Amino acid sequence: MATIQDVARLAGVSVSSVSNVLNEKRDRLRPETFDKVLAAIEKLDYRPSRAARQLKTGRTSMIGLLVSSTANPFMGQIAAAIEAYAQRRYGYRVLLCNTQRDRRQEASMFQDLVDFGVGAAILISSLADERHVEDAVRRGLAVVSYDRGGNPDSSVPIDHVQPDNIEAGRLAAAHLIQHGHRHLAFAMPAGMTISRQAKIDGFRMAAANAQVPVRTEVIEGRSITMYGDSELGKVGFELGQKIGRSASAPTGIVVVNDMMAFGLMAGLRDAGKRTPEDVSVIGMDDFAISHYIWPALTSVAMPIDDMVRTMVDCAIARLSDPSAAASELVFTPTLIERQSVACPPGAR
Amino acid sequence: MATIQDVARLAGVSVSSVSNVLNEKRDRLRPETFDKVLAAIEKLDYRPSRAARQLKTGRTSMIGLLVSSTANPFMGQIAAAIEAYAQRRYGYRVLLCNTQRDRRQEASMFQDLVDFGVGAAILISSLADERHVEDAVRRGLAVVSYDRGGNPDSSVPIDHVQPDNIEAGRLAAAHLIQHGHRHLAFAMPAGMTISRQAKIDGFRMAAANAQVPVRTEVIEGRSITMYGDSELGKVGFELGQKIGRSASAPTGIVVVNDMMAFGLMAGLRDAGKRTPEDVSVIGMDDFAISHYIWPALTSVAMPIDDMVRTMVDCAIARLSDPSAAASELVFTPTLIERQSVACPPGAR
Repeated sequence: MATIQDVARLAGVSVSSVSNVLNEKRDRLRPETFDKVLAAIEKLDYRPSRAARQLKTGRTSMIGLLVSSTANPFMGQIAAAIEAYAQRRYGYRVLLCNTQRDRRQEASMFQDLVDFGVGAAILISSLADERHVEDAVRRGLAVVSYDRGGNPDSSVPIDHVQPDNIEAGRLAAAHLIQHGHRHLAFAMPAGMTISRQAKIDGFRMAAANAQVPVRTEVIEGRSITMYGDSELGKVGFELGQKIGRSASAPTGIVVVNDMMAFGLMAGLRDAGKRTPEDVSVIGMDDFAISHYIWPALTSVAMPIDDMVRTMVDCAIARLSDPSAAASELVFTPTLIERQSVACPPGAR
Repeated sequence: MATIQDVARLAGVSVSSVSNVLNEKRDRLRPETFDKVLAAIEKLDYRPSRAARQLKTGRTSMIGLLVSSTANPFMGQIAAAIEAYAQRRYGYRVLLCNTQRDRRQEASMFQDLVDFGVGAAILISSLADERHVEDAVRRGLAVVSYDRGGNPDSSVPIDHVQPDNIEAGRLAAAHLIQHGHRHLAFAMPAGMTISRQAKIDGFRMAAANAQVPVRTEVIEGRSITMYGDSELGKVGFELGQKIGRSASAPTGIVVVNDMMAFGLMAGLRDAGKRTPEDVSVIGMDDFAISHYIWPALTSVAMPIDDMVRTMVDCAIARLSDPSAAASELVFTPTLIERQSVACPPGAR
């Protein structure tokens, strides 16, 4: 097991410099020194003694993580990335809560975090109402919120990290329009959230900006609030069946996430419609499995690794400076082309 | 928010009876009373005050959860189920660690749990060597271990909960043999674990018990130890390509888990082989997506919900009785037939 002395030796700096890095006293160090120490910490896989740190700061080295449900592979992937980075970079553990997008669950977890002496939490939600989050911040919890913008009227500082969901919707719809589609749908479970609205705005914007008339519609499946994200596939399947049997079905569909897109393609197939020959489908999230299914799913990828690092960095930084101005950080998505998009039947 | 008085009123019992249920004093209550109180707790969504409980027990109401990685959808699903049940049934939160099947990670998490005052952990691993787990138990941590049997020589009590992996392997191979397959392979990443060995034992047993000669082989892809379970799809893809190009390929393949099976089918496809027309494939885990991919994957389902409830119940029970004899609980898997198995080409 590496010691603080080993790190100092490898980085060619004093033990107190290493200590400054560990305690996030960035201002006392030159950036080069900071980077050298970090590199040595990573190389030696050095982890400071938890007990020593806790005695010093009086704080539990845990952060809270609230996700809708790790049963959704996208959330499972984010949870794994957050846990690994918080642990490797800061020696912090992660206290997990699957909220099922339920505000009472979120509020109850915030209360527990405060009771446990946990100082910071990452909230991956997109409930429109953020008042319960603001309450938690007033009680001393630092919160980094994912997938929604900040409220400019709010008096409490909450950092916001999000993909550019408008751009995600725009990219997907523009890709279908380029392939000749003139009747597009945006498919999602029932119920509006901030991120869904942003994706729809981008989706409609692409149609409005096209040189040709493009018809757009939003098609909602049943609600998943009560069942959790493990029901996303089923909701997609039922919606795919319905669309597949409709006489006036769209030829190109943007689905709010990959999990639902898998189900939707299966539902279309069940109704006798092939992807992409009859209906083109684009997902969002780009999770690992999307490479391996048939047809491989074209999807809008969010820059998970960058966003995860930023969320954890923000949460830890806010522990030492709770009243700093809130950050609003937006990350750009990219379209990953695979095999689920083709020209519409009429255009071939 | 419901109070303990509300629960007592609904169940028609005294407040002290409810308290006995909350504090797991089963012996002081008749089973009917216990069940009535539980029903009232569930109905009212009652959660005892964490602070009150902690003052009384001196224990943090958290359990640790160690999984290989929630980036594997099967693990994400288990993590969500454990967290939801621990929270709903006992008001416990879950501290998550993605171990990447690395023994040092597991040992370091155990140390942190002890430092944090966490009394119990669920370990979903299948590393052959359990000595670091025994060390943690000696330091006062209650551990419930998934997917491996107990060591009869061990002096420390560790509860073991596992699916019958031998039966899982047997079921899958027997299903292929019934469809006329005479050359079977068991596919997995490189490296033996206890659960993989048990699955292979069952797989070979089915061949040995068949009325006809059946050739079996074990085909290993590259190791995933360094990359984590998010690499399972890729390892399967490469192995599928290799098998698809081989002149003496098996006609039926049992894959150690669904995630790898998805990749393997994509690799076979890439090499010009169709599932199930050319090669039949069976996965294990039966996760939600397996219904929706094409062809829908026949898979061996593990009784997740039962196992999850048992693991959490065991972990909490052991908190009040650390020296009780260890439980060895084995759960029976079932085969879910879908569309990835057919008769071999020669037999049609």
